[in-house]
Amino acid sequence: MEKLRVIGTGGTIAATATEKGDKPTIGVTTLLHKIPQIRERFDSDPIQLLQKDSTFINHKDWARIAREAYHASAQGNKVLITHGTDTLAYTSAALSFAIQNPQTSIVLTGSMRLPEEPETDALKNLTDSAIFLLEGAKGVYVVFNGKVMTASRITKVHSTDVNAFDTVDGKYVATVEENRVVYQNKLVESNAQTNLADTFDNRVCTLKVTPSLPKDIFDAILDKGFKAINIAAFGTGNIPYTSSKGDPEKVLGGLLRKAIQTARRVPVVVTSQAAHGGVDLRKYEVGRKIEIPPMISGEDMSQEAAHVKLMWCLGQGMNLDEIRRSFERSYAGEITVG
Amino acid sequence: MEKLRVIGTGGTIAATATEKGDKPTIGVTTLLHKIPQIRERFDSDPIQLLQKDSTFINHKDWARIAREAYHASAQGNKVLITHGTDTLAYTSAALSFAIQNPQTSIVLTGSMRLPEEPETDALKNLTDSAIFLLEGAKGVYVVFNGKVMTASRITKVHSTDVNAFDTVDGKYVATVEENRVVYQNKLVESNAQTNLADTFDNRVCTLKVTPSLPKDIFDAILDKGFKAINIAAFGTGNIPYTSSKGDPEKVLGGLLRKAIQTARRVPVVVTSQAAHGGVDLRKYEVGRKIEIPPMISGEDMSQEAAHVKLMWCLGQGMNLDEIRRSFERSYAGEITVG
Repeated sequence: MEKLRVIGTGGTIAATATEKGDKPTIGVTTLLHKIPQIRERFDSDPIQLLQKDSTFINHKDWARIAREAYHASAQGNKVLITHGTDTLAYTSAALSFAIQNPQTSIVLTGSMRLPEEPETDALKNLTDSAIFLLEGAKGVYVVFNGKVMTASRITKVHSTDVNAFDTVDGKYVATVEENRVVYQNKLVESNAQTNLADTFDNRVCTLKVTPSLPKDIFDAILDKGFKAINIAAFGTGNIPYTSSKGDPEKVLGGLLRKAIQTARRVPVVVTSQAAHGGVDLRKYEVGRKIEIPPMISGEDMSQEAAHVKLMWCLGQGMNLDEIRRSFERSYAGEITVG
Repeated sequence: MEKLRVIGTGGTIAATATEKGDKPTIGVTTLLHKIPQIRERFDSDPIQLLQKDSTFINHKDWARIAREAYHASAQGNKVLITHGTDTLAYTSAALSFAIQNPQTSIVLTGSMRLPEEPETDALKNLTDSAIFLLEGAKGVYVVFNGKVMTASRITKVHSTDVNAFDTVDGKYVATVEENRVVYQNKLVESNAQTNLADTFDNRVCTLKVTPSLPKDIFDAILDKGFKAINIAAFGTGNIPYTSSKGDPEKVLGGLLRKAIQTARRVPVVVTSQAAHGGVDLRKYEVGRKIEIPPMISGEDMSQEAAHVKLMWCLGQGMNLDEIRRSFERSYAGEITVG
């Protein structure tokens, strides 16, 4: 039998309806018992690490989950993590950066419907996860609604539908169809040394650019000592860089440039507020004006992965130049390189 | 012949490739000439109101476009507005609030590919717009990639694909197939008095909640005198409201509650950072804890419409209670009521 470490963290997949609203109460052992593919095929070792609505999962929880998953994986276990869907895209990105080159499969899953509901997707998602875990693919993945996705690529695209997640590039590693894994793309596995790097710094802000956004929003953020900014820009990465009055320092782009170039040397990553398609700062004149350097292109990363990667780079003690180089590199498939 | 006012504002649909990147240079008259459905069926009266990349369209531009479109419509013209795609979702929401109950069709369109490119979607989008305009539906609409959408409902979901827009509820008014309009949903038209309300206030910030987001981000925004906040919350509208330390004032939800309840009386609207599905603050225990009052639910509105509606409500001089009531009401199909 395959060894499987199951890490329960809460979420809808562990929730029941209460008078106060749905909240996580079901233990991970109870969940596992419902899944014959896990009961019969795996020697499973469950741990209830957390029991939280994922709204409350924070960067310290990421470190705890990463350590548990890393050590279990290093000991030859496959790993299944159950998690709420609200912040699944953030946690899955965090684990992708924290657990480098795992030598077993680490799968995150969750559900949009309570396990007790007749139409629940909890059992399907757990079953599909078990089926994919049997494949033995190295790396960190999210299995949801029949899709196997690179964990650093996902984004929550629907707040209520069971088809809640998609990848920002629209590609899946595989689908699970009639209990079989059907590969959609070539698996990218690394044979590099496995490593744990589980420190994150939370002084990062994602800011969405909106029309006529007053420029002092950036002063506000920088004055409070935020160490990095992820800009959710328009379209392919466009940010107003100048006004009709012509003073570039007086608008968003100019202020950002100043923040990077002055003593503060604040890393500013540019992503797109469109869920899909990523950024291309060379496409439009407005993009070229803010082109890197000094700004860092998020390329085709998700906003979630860009935000978490900044938290992780800062947590690793990287300076601006090191962060810039990190953003040109794919640690876990989060960007398409070359 | 039908009377058609065409308002050019720039964008990719008016852009050519230059050495410095794509930028708007093509006049709206040149564009119209390429579309037989407009040339032959309409007595068209084009005006080049702006020539901007839509990254730079601001709330004063919205007012200018709204006034032009309103007066043209009040004089019995159908109206076609060409616009860049980056901020089309914001401008289309703004016009929906500013031009109440128009007595003709007002259609916004744009393109993802330059008109000079062989694969351009500019000609298709203009042609489809003309075909829909001939139907004579009252109201403000966006026509893009064969879809006719309620203008207050759209969101840019892809930064590069021609299928760049979707509605947050996944419903379209109609599709344009082989030069015919095929209705997908019943047209909702109002016979109420038409009216122009074109003032917007730009001191609104959309803030995306991320895991472990330091709480002082709200102090930062409020200290700078922002008058309203649109929270892009997790999933169905969840925001961390308490920490494991138990002091609700020390976390985001608590701080927001304070901002609303104290002398500042800052309106805080909760939307979802998931593109689709909207918010439902009653679903989870974490949602109920921040339930309205004091916070205002964005229901199934898009983030863009919620942001612009706040700008518009403030521009109309509404106080917190009036804004709350406005958010329970649909002005232009932006929320599903009842």
